[in-house]
Amino acid sequence: MPRASHTLLEEVMFFDTDIGGVIHNLAYLRMIEKARTLLCVETMDMDLTAMADTGIYPVLLRTEADYRRPGTLGDTLRVTSTLDRLEKVKFWICSEVRRQSDDTLLVSCQQSLALIKMPEARPTRLPKSWVEKWS
Amino acid sequence: MPRASHTLLEEVMFFDTDIGGVIHNLAYLRMIEKARTLLCVETMDMDLTAMADTGIYPVLLRTEADYRRPGTLGDTLRVTSTLDRLEKVKFWICSEVRRQSDDTLLVSCQQSLALIKMPEARPTRLPKSWVEKWS
Amino acid sequence: MPRASHTLLEEVMFFDTDIGGVIHNLAYLRMIEKARTLLCVETMDMDLTAMADTGIYPVLLRTEADYRRPGTLGDTLRVTSTLDRLEKVKFWICSEVRRQSDDTLLVSCQQSLALIKMPEARPTRLPKSWVEKWS
Amino acid sequence: MPRASHTLLEEVMFFDTDIGGVIHNLAYLRMIEKARTLLCVETMDMDLTAMADTGIYPVLLRTEADYRRPGTLGDTLRVTSTLDRLEKVKFWICSEVRRQSDDTLLVSCQQSLALIKMPEARPTRLPKSWVEKWS
Repeated sequence: MPRASHTLLEEVMFFDTDIGGVIHNLAYLRMIEKARTLLCVETMDMDLTAMADTGIYPVLLRTEADYRRPGTLGDTLRVTSTLDRLEKVKFWICSEVRRQSDDTLLVSCQQSLALIKMPEARPTRLPKSWVEKWS
Repeated sequence: MPRASHTLLEEVMFFDTDIGGVIHNLAYLRMIEKARTLLCVETMDMDLTAMADTGIYPVLLRTEADYRRPGTLGDTLRVTSTLDRLEKVKFWICSEVRRQSDDTLLVSCQQSLALIKMPEARPTRLPKSWVEKWS
Repeated sequence: MPRASHTLLEEVMFFDTDIGGVIHNLAYLRMIEKARTLLCVETMDMDLTAMADTGIYPVLLRTEADYRRPGTLGDTLRVTSTLDRLEKVKFWICSEVRRQSDDTLLVSCQQSLALIKMPEARPTRLPKSWVEKWS
Repeated sequence: MPRASHTLLEEVMFFDTDIGGVIHNLAYLRMIEKARTLLCVETMDMDLTAMADTGIYPVLLRTEADYRRPGTLGDTLRVTSTLDRLEKVKFWICSEVRRQSDDTLLVSCQQSLALIKMPEARPTRLPKSWVEKWS
């Protein structure tokens, strides 16, 4: 069975770079959050607009990121996030950032998340539909 | 009468700079927001913790920023925000960013704000105490 | 003659919002910088990759931004940047951020820029091709 | 022997929070980068101003971050970065973010870095003085 996945292309902007002449580490994580969120919205049916009412938000629990090669201004980046696995309350998403022109892997990243009821910060069970479809 | 004012010192970090070797324009506005918010909190008695309950937030209406000289990594910046004037629902804050070592003016900025009741986005009157003290 | 213009669509992400439940003012300016930079690259033939060699970078001189209506998580934003006018060393770009679903104007912004030779921070004349085509 | 360490206090700003009502994950990493950089500058004698000349920059290789408890607007955070260990070209820094009022651990983070010669992206040996003093 194919895994849930989302890919986006990002042009590197000035605010993504720093004085060292390369992309800053936080900029990659911002791009990865975008790919990860769009994966949740477009493939896993998460409804961003409903969150203000339900108070249930996806919350990051852990990030592991490896910065492998530097990217720079003028690069087009291909950012792919893939749902890796689910438990009762946690799910893991793996992401990769590659330079579009030559497919070089710049950053790889694994993150675990949970759906948390705010403001009491209480974890909720993952949707049954996710468990049936993706676990 | 002295005007309400707040000054902070900021060390320039890598994420404040871009590939051009200077501080990125958005980084200055982030520092100015910090000085402006601390002015509201420490001198004008705005209570950040209470906002989640009252739903009344300071909202930026307009920014005018002039980028005059470039700063860079290793600089210490002195950021000063000053309450300029108040009306019934709007107030104006002027800010300056200077290089600490030689007092060079890097950025000057004027911003107007209002206190807005969320989520209905309704402007509220400025506190009587502000009007009495600062107008 | 049509003016040089670039439009992009942006999905609002969590990092674009703040505790007030709306898009943060700095997030709009980041999106506007993206539209503005892609206008320079795709329509005005600015070459981002060549900048590290030439040392000539587009530098923001002034920003005027009016925050008119709040956007929020789940909105799709349409960000349009248009070249407004050129002088010898300065050029002005106007930008608008609209909610895609109902065309509501959220933010309007005017910015002036120059092409600056780094690290000496010396302004350079705008390219002859720009002046011929766009002034 | 005491380990090299640096602590800073950060007031939580609006741009640090998101619509979920808590601090956004990227904001913690920005604060940690600040503590980590000031550790390098103030205790380990890294010279930020010299980097533009030498072309040798500290580059992040890996981040592991655990988000344990949520912080929010109005909190004061205590961010501590500590040099954990050194090898020939890599060094590890551990960081913690705690709520100042009750010492609650919000985020813990381990990061490895190297000193990289730009633009050729070549790792360099760590300074002899670091190895003598801290390994």
